[in-house]
Amino acid sequence: MSKLKNSLLEIINTQYFSFGDANENGLLLDCGQRFGPITVAYETYGKLNASHNNAILICHALTGDAHLAGIQAEDGRPGWWEILVGPGKAFDTEKYFIICSNVLGGCKGTTGPASLNPATGQPYALSFPIITIEDMVRVQHRLLEHLGIAKLVTVVGGSMGGMQALAWCQLYPEMVASAIPIATASALTAQGIAWNEIGRRAIMADAAWDEGNYYGPGHPRPEAGLAVARMVGHITYLSEVSLEQKFARNLQNNNIYKYTLGVEFQIESYLQYQGKVFNNRFDANSYLYITRAMDYFDFSKGNLREAFQNTSARFLFIAFSTDWLYPVSQSEKMVEALKLNGQSVAYKFIDAPQGHDAFLLEDKQQAFIIKDFLTSISL
Amino acid sequence: MSKLKNSLLEIINTQYFSFGDANENGLLLDCGQRFGPITVAYETYGKLNASHNNAILICHALTGDAHLAGIQAEDGRPGWWEILVGPGKAFDTEKYFIICSNVLGGCKGTTGPASLNPATGQPYALSFPIITIEDMVRVQHRLLEHLGIAKLVTVVGGSMGGMQALAWCQLYPEMVASAIPIATASALTAQGIAWNEIGRRAIMADAAWDEGNYYGPGHPRPEAGLAVARMVGHITYLSEVSLEQKFARNLQNNNIYKYTLGVEFQIESYLQYQGKVFNNRFDANSYLYITRAMDYFDFSKGNLREAFQNTSARFLFIAFSTDWLYPVSQSEKMVEALKLNGQSVAYKFIDAPQGHDAFLLEDKQQAFIIKDFLTSISL
Repeated sequence: MSKLKNSLLEIINTQYFSFGDANENGLLLDCGQRFGPITVAYETYGKLNASHNNAILICHALTGDAHLAGIQAEDGRPGWWEILVGPGKAFDTEKYFIICSNVLGGCKGTTGPASLNPATGQPYALSFPIITIEDMVRVQHRLLEHLGIAKLVTVVGGSMGGMQALAWCQLYPEMVASAIPIATASALTAQGIAWNEIGRRAIMADAAWDEGNYYGPGHPRPEAGLAVARMVGHITYLSEVSLEQKFARNLQNNNIYKYTLGVEFQIESYLQYQGKVFNNRFDANSYLYITRAMDYFDFSKGNLREAFQNTSARFLFIAFSTDWLYPVSQSEKMVEALKLNGQSVAYKFIDAPQGHDAFLLEDKQQAFIIKDFLTSISL
Repeated sequence: MSKLKNSLLEIINTQYFSFGDANENGLLLDCGQRFGPITVAYETYGKLNASHNNAILICHALTGDAHLAGIQAEDGRPGWWEILVGPGKAFDTEKYFIICSNVLGGCKGTTGPASLNPATGQPYALSFPIITIEDMVRVQHRLLEHLGIAKLVTVVGGSMGGMQALAWCQLYPEMVASAIPIATASALTAQGIAWNEIGRRAIMADAAWDEGNYYGPGHPRPEAGLAVARMVGHITYLSEVSLEQKFARNLQNNNIYKYTLGVEFQIESYLQYQGKVFNNRFDANSYLYITRAMDYFDFSKGNLREAFQNTSARFLFIAFSTDWLYPVSQSEKMVEALKLNGQSVAYKFIDAPQGHDAFLLEDKQQAFIIKDFLTSISL
């Protein structure tokens, strides 16, 4: 178990937990299939106390992973939520035992489409079952059982991580003292589904995708398609104002037009770079399955107030002014439903220029409000 | 010359005008190249009067063409601006002589990348020169010379058509009595360039694109890539509210989830349909060249007030509340510059749910304000 003294210097090892099989011991998924074995890649920060009542679960977004903070032992990467996780930070590793696991269907250590199917010795590819946000949460639940944690101080996440936090309150209400859904929605709108579908179509349009069977040695990867999917996603994560501040109409190499279909504007070079580096860290089939899980998520199932009625968790919602992918109105609908139910809910609207990505970047108001909220939660 | 009695019954023939060559008689493009010969496909509506002072030029958007209204003789299609063009309509064909031509670089009759290069007998493909909005306008100018029109009552267009209207005021100020730029901008923002670049990358990611050389018999077309480009474009043309009203999270075939990577939601089926039908009417290389021309357009070149100073045209700007691709602020900046210059400008903000596409669809306020504006313009 890792202890952080200084998150910039600490080496964090990914840990692994496996369970289940393809038969009666498999995890029963929403699609009706029993699935297993499942390996879960996870990292922990801080120390679980003797009473086991200081655990926090952090859920990652679409392209995230288990590596929250510190230096990843295998590849030296910094964590994706350094701004909030560490000694003395909002999620204080000197006080809490913090867990983050790669989601089911992912490609960063947890079983996903690129994993070998033990029954065939081949990658699952498209024989991987369709999964849901709830299925991801069921896997996290098994991990918590394994770690001996019966109740969480809080379950928290941004974007798809927020969906998981909501699903936790519905599936395991007795295990959740509080939840912090950030920059999220109870369900994607038609536009949100459309962006995901466009990303999937871009991947599938790449001949190298080959119906998902691109894992073999020497087989090309659908890099061009995944790059386009990432470009689309990336623009939806940023606000128009942040793009304008960063790039405007700045040219790449000249102060005069070159008249070319190649790179002319800085924003084009940036998009191509984003597409390229994403290919180094993400699997195209995982992109298909995880975006699909987001599409399927529908917390309210038609009645938002009813959806919240089985949980006694205290809620903190955070939403960002320039987030147009998960607009503040989505969070505010949930806050309103909880208020009408007479449940405990706090809401922080943060004026931030970064768009949807603000949940990964905004480190002042967000850190303060979370830290303050957590001081009021005890098991 | 066509006369409309009833736009629903009238057959409209596309006409063609050719000029120039590849040498000194070619059109001098912004990229520095002389280019020709150029054929222009155009349609006219109404009758040019004896004084030649009742002409209106309508400029089309990215995927439009010369066919404004009536029944296209070749393929029976209705026009793209039936709501505004016809007898007694905003652009009254009983009063005005209305001209619309397919843009340079297009694929609906005017010379573009799919056209045969007479020097080689092969399609230009990527040997087609990089063109600009101004180059499109220069071609229209040659068409007006050919038609014997020295001055326009108005030049009008939505989206990229609005850019052409602005360019007309800059390049040929003496020929423009008024201009109606609708749902447009003086230049694309970084986000606007990003959407275009994503569309281009989607086309280029399709192996069938083959560096643009896909015109040969038996060669596959980059249909999957062009479909993705269209899907991206399409979502940017619609407002989130209109998507939500039309599709929300409605399922395609069931009222329960099928758990599939295939079509599940109606919005997905709609997007796939849009991608498919677009392939029947548009050339992928034209999409590359025309979006690039839009990227390059920069009317103000750093000083919007100065950009307007050489024109004495009277302006009517129209912008739509839910247009997030060409937000109202873009039009308002231009209106403000003209006001500060003491120039004649009217501005109509229209509250409409359709997003950017409202300029093609909104037929009440838009029709009224245009008709009213035109009554005040005479040569």
